[in-house]
Amino acid sequence: MLLTSPTPTTPVAGPSAGDLTRDPLTFGVGARVTASVMADDYVDVLTRALAEVSTDGLVLSTGDVSTYVGGSETDLLRYLTDLGAALAATGHHVTLTVHLSRGCPGEVVCERPGGAGPRGASVPPTRTTGRLAAAEWALYPLADAAPAVGPDGAAPPEPDHMRDIYAAIDHARELGTFRGSEHFVTRLEGDLGDVLATAVAGWVLVGRSVQHVTSHLQVSLNSPNHAAPAGATDGAIDGEVVR
Amino acid sequence: MLLTSPTPTTPVAGPSAGDLTRDPLTFGVGARVTASVMADDYVDVLTRALAEVSTDGLVLSTGDVSTYVGGSETDLLRYLTDLGAALAATGHHVTLTVHLSRGCPGEVVCERPGGAGPRGASVPPTRTTGRLAAAEWALYPLADAAPAVGPDGAAPPEPDHMRDIYAAIDHARELGTFRGSEHFVTRLEGDLGDVLATAVAGWVLVGRSVQHVTSHLQVSLNSPNHAAPAGATDGAIDGEVVR
Repeated sequence: MLLTSPTPTTPVAGPSAGDLTRDPLTFGVGARVTASVMADDYVDVLTRALAEVSTDGLVLSTGDVSTYVGGSETDLLRYLTDLGAALAATGHHVTLTVHLSRGCPGEVVCERPGGAGPRGASVPPTRTTGRLAAAEWALYPLADAAPAVGPDGAAPPEPDHMRDIYAAIDHARELGTFRGSEHFVTRLEGDLGDVLATAVAGWVLVGRSVQHVTSHLQVSLNSPNHAAPAGATDGAIDGEVVR
Repeated sequence: MLLTSPTPTTPVAGPSAGDLTRDPLTFGVGARVTASVMADDYVDVLTRALAEVSTDGLVLSTGDVSTYVGGSETDLLRYLTDLGAALAATGHHVTLTVHLSRGCPGEVVCERPGGAGPRGASVPPTRTTGRLAAAEWALYPLADAAPAVGPDGAAPPEPDHMRDIYAAIDHARELGTFRGSEHFVTRLEGDLGDVLATAVAGWVLVGRSVQHVTSHLQVSLNSPNHAAPAGATDGAIDGEVVR
């Protein structure tokens, strides 16, 4: 928590700003993931699904509330897509809660890499899974001041949330996942791979001009309500209960 | 999503700033809640639990990803506590995902109540449930500029994130729920009522000097791992799988 506490950025001895943004773990690029399977044998279902998912290039620490996954944006999206697809393939109703973070490796007090500035990263490749997902997305640019030094020591781009946020929206429209807005979130629908890629891409795109960016994505797989017309995105489907 | 897009605050015709902060719905006080029950008959379990929970004073809109609940901080905490307690009482492993927001009733573009400033609210009363919860908490103060006018038209307090964030930490310590920090989140444990109250109180306390504050809380109930010693909060419990 408290990732946004405005701790004065203190210069970091040793690695250069470029080093700080280049290494995903040093820069605090990672996710916390909670997968909930609506089944009596959820432990077995999860264990079997996880056995299919490669963790190459990632650091994992599993807990009773969520699992921390640290690594590059591309490895994170691959892991999330593979995990979601493996769970969707079970046919069970599954919820995936994904909390992405970058630029704030600190904990109770956010200790940013001194002068690291934003991390320029490519939008990771998307994998189509053939599985429908509905999701709600929140994206939080948390740093506003222009960093002293950008990636590789170059002058960083001027911070411009709206530019990057509109780029994130445009990317969502290109992926065909954007369904509009609801209270506090944006509604996404489409192939699971595209839905996850939308959130990761938005987080990466905003991260090009903002050092510390978090994003929260709540995904529903195999919901009994996904037989509802694709247009029914107003969050008020008859007969629904809390999912 | 995009709650943090820095839309210029435009004066609002009609209601005064005091009115904008006084009414919870006008100010955008609410939550999105997803409850996941690890059981084959999850729909029946949820339906029965929801039937026990009062929605007095709240506006609800239920969807296939989450349910929006709007209303005062006190009514929201009562609803969350009653819902969590009813689900915990089923004995099933349940995950609750709670996304709190205040001060940004807009949607794709955050349209803050013009000059509303922060909403001063009391820390809601806590109800002890007798149910153990483990949770991970993130708190995001999203507005920094001093508002033109504070609650009731009075001059607002000077924004001071650290003061309020430390107040939130102190409150968590008083409630005995604070367990330390993990990547991107704070670990909370204790009675479900205290864990929920910790997140709501932190959100309210930071909201006294920051207009737009969101908080994300991931709660685990009846986890098979909660037999683990209370000290085991390092998120790396042997034999765990993604929850």
